Amino acid sequence: MQTLTVDLGERSYPIHIGSNLLGDPQWLTSHIHGQQVMVVTNETVAPLYLKKCLAALSDYRTEAVILPDGEQYKNLDVLNTIYDALLTHHFDRRCTLIALGGGVVGDMTGFAAASYQRGVNFIQIPTTLLSQVDSSVGGKTGVNHPRGKNMIGAFHQPQCVLADIDTLNTLDDRQLSAGLAEVIKYGLINDIEFVDWLETNMDKLLQRDSDALAYAIKLSCQDKADIVAADEKESGQRALLNLGHTFGHAIETGMGYGEWLHGEAIAAGMVLAAELSHQLGWVDSAVVARIRTLMASANLPITPPKEMNAQQFVDLMAVDKKVIDGKLRLVLMDALGNSIIAEGVDPKVIEGVLKRSLESAS
Amino acid sequence: MQTLTVDLGERSYPIHIGSNLLGDPQWLTSHIHGQQVMVVTNETVAPLYLKKCLAALSDYRTEAVILPDGEQYKNLDVLNTIYDALLTHHFDRRCTLIALGGGVVGDMTGFAAASYQRGVNFIQIPTTLLSQVDSSVGGKTGVNHPRGKNMIGAFHQPQCVLADIDTLNTLDDRQLSAGLAEVIKYGLINDIEFVDWLETNMDKLLQRDSDALAYAIKLSCQDKADIVAADEKESGQRALLNLGHTFGHAIETGMGYGEWLHGEAIAAGMVLAAELSHQLGWVDSAVVARIRTLMASANLPITPPKEMNAQQFVDLMAVDKKVIDGKLRLVLMDALGNSIIAEGVDPKVIEGVLKRSLESAS
Repeated sequence: MQTLTVDLGERSYPIHIGSNLLGDPQWLTSHIHGQQVMVVTNETVAPLYLKKCLAALSDYRTEAVILPDGEQYKNLDVLNTIYDALLTHHFDRRCTLIALGGGVVGDMTGFAAASYQRGVNFIQIPTTLLSQVDSSVGGKTGVNHPRGKNMIGAFHQPQCVLADIDTLNTLDDRQLSAGLAEVIKYGLINDIEFVDWLETNMDKLLQRDSDALAYAIKLSCQDKADIVAADEKESGQRALLNLGHTFGHAIETGMGYGEWLHGEAIAAGMVLAAELSHQLGWVDSAVVARIRTLMASANLPITPPKEMNAQQFVDLMAVDKKVIDGKLRLVLMDALGNSIIAEGVDPKVIEGVLKRSLESAS
Repeated sequence: MQTLTVDLGERSYPIHIGSNLLGDPQWLTSHIHGQQVMVVTNETVAPLYLKKCLAALSDYRTEAVILPDGEQYKNLDVLNTIYDALLTHHFDRRCTLIALGGGVVGDMTGFAAASYQRGVNFIQIPTTLLSQVDSSVGGKTGVNHPRGKNMIGAFHQPQCVLADIDTLNTLDDRQLSAGLAEVIKYGLINDIEFVDWLETNMDKLLQRDSDALAYAIKLSCQDKADIVAADEKESGQRALLNLGHTFGHAIETGMGYGEWLHGEAIAAGMVLAAELSHQLGWVDSAVVARIRTLMASANLPITPPKEMNAQQFVDLMAVDKKVIDGKLRLVLMDALGNSIIAEGVDPKVIEGVLKRSLESAS
């Protein structure tokens, strides 16, 4: 078991990474203050881990909410079922919510915790690779709006994050690959050595080699914890974590939530970011080729969905949270393993890259 | 014009109180950072003040959302219409929301601002007495849930509060009285001299004497600002501001949102708190009589609605936000002009007081 810390002053919290954490009450009990605990999970994860989780909480008054599984359910209506459960069971301000599941469960449980009675505690138990390396860390919570991803939400830090790598054994291959997209992202942001390591070890990761997974998760969480500690509310460098996300969110919203997994959408988004960086003359074509090969080796898409067109992308990207005073900010690359925040890129150049990439998809 | 400050470190903000503030752009412009401004108001206030407000914002890109009027519309569905408008008009994270209206508009606009793109700026322009003396100050934002008042929300402080007392001239008498309930509350919490002043000046307030109103508003805002500065997130003394609110919220929820105005419900709630304090031997019957007389002189109800029964109160109060680890905390009185937080009051005594009061109502 390894422990990292997200250093945020009085809101600091630990990330525990290891095997069989879920079955050991000690990792949870020190972070629960009241008597009431609500476990929020989904219909896929509940049959696998809910019983084990509740068993570790036998000293508390526990209840559970089981949500439908999928990004298409990350909305205000489904969020309301969490409030309903909390109020039905008379949960008060000292209660703790536990998110047991992937990114959707974590984002919704976190926002429910941020907004129930103006804020209660919560704990993240991410059970997918994507949520272990990304969404469970950093305090971004929220739900989608039909017009845009994650448009409604709050910054609300958890009391702790418990990443039990054993839970990855029940993850299906598609979800595993989606998680690898976020892992690759950390390499592309600022770690060329990690890119090299991923190129060498992708097969091991796909075969769920536990040492390789533990290494990739720890390195990803450490990267994220450092960036979040330096810029909690994303006024600057934290925006680098959105590499591939402006294009990716447009894919998720445009295709309908749940059609493309978040990791798949940002994989295609990162390739688009590389292609745009190349078009601007910031990286050469060999960098784009290496990124395409790495994504493909993780069984991830390298072109946007052929069902979309460039105008749809442009419209959807105009409402992205990275837009400031009408100007689109994109995360691009000026070298393999080094991303930068770019403002004021010529919309015509963006559209041209989108068109070419969409043509190659069809 | 008078200015008070809510002292919250980097989240400090001014409250401007005076005549003709709404028509003067200077009070708004210094608190708006981006170019996009969304004015949120309701169908009653819009015909009276929206044009004037937009005229003061002519240097910005403005849009407006007009909500239906009433506590029954303070819910997630109506909140969603604010998100819709923001996204339709491509509002980004640098936008500013302006709440132009009473407490419902302020609470909903504040929560929309707290949760849109994980938090944007907002300004309060309260146009009712109740919102000028209470709900616009202190950063409590949120919406109701069918099972409880203000159960979904956030602490989110405004950039400034603009209390233009001219707007009270268009307020109907019932709303004015409802606002006086919150004014009386400040006296009952910790200011016997203010209670004396209110007993002497109630007629002037009901006749909308502008000096009397300005004095009452300033004193109320100063009281609230001091309490909020000392305890922003209500871990202690801020709970005193809930005098009459646990009973009052039960009335609002039990009768259906919008039936009783918030101020009316907490007026009856404060009388119940006085009666319970007397039953416990903490104040004598003369104190209860003086409070009843003061409420009645403001044309406020002094008994709970006869349509409710004691069991309904007990059930609804059990989900109040003041419940901690299953224990109900009530704000009661140990003297006229001095309130205290009481925990563990015998539920049978509470029920007895409710039953007697409900009988006298029928």
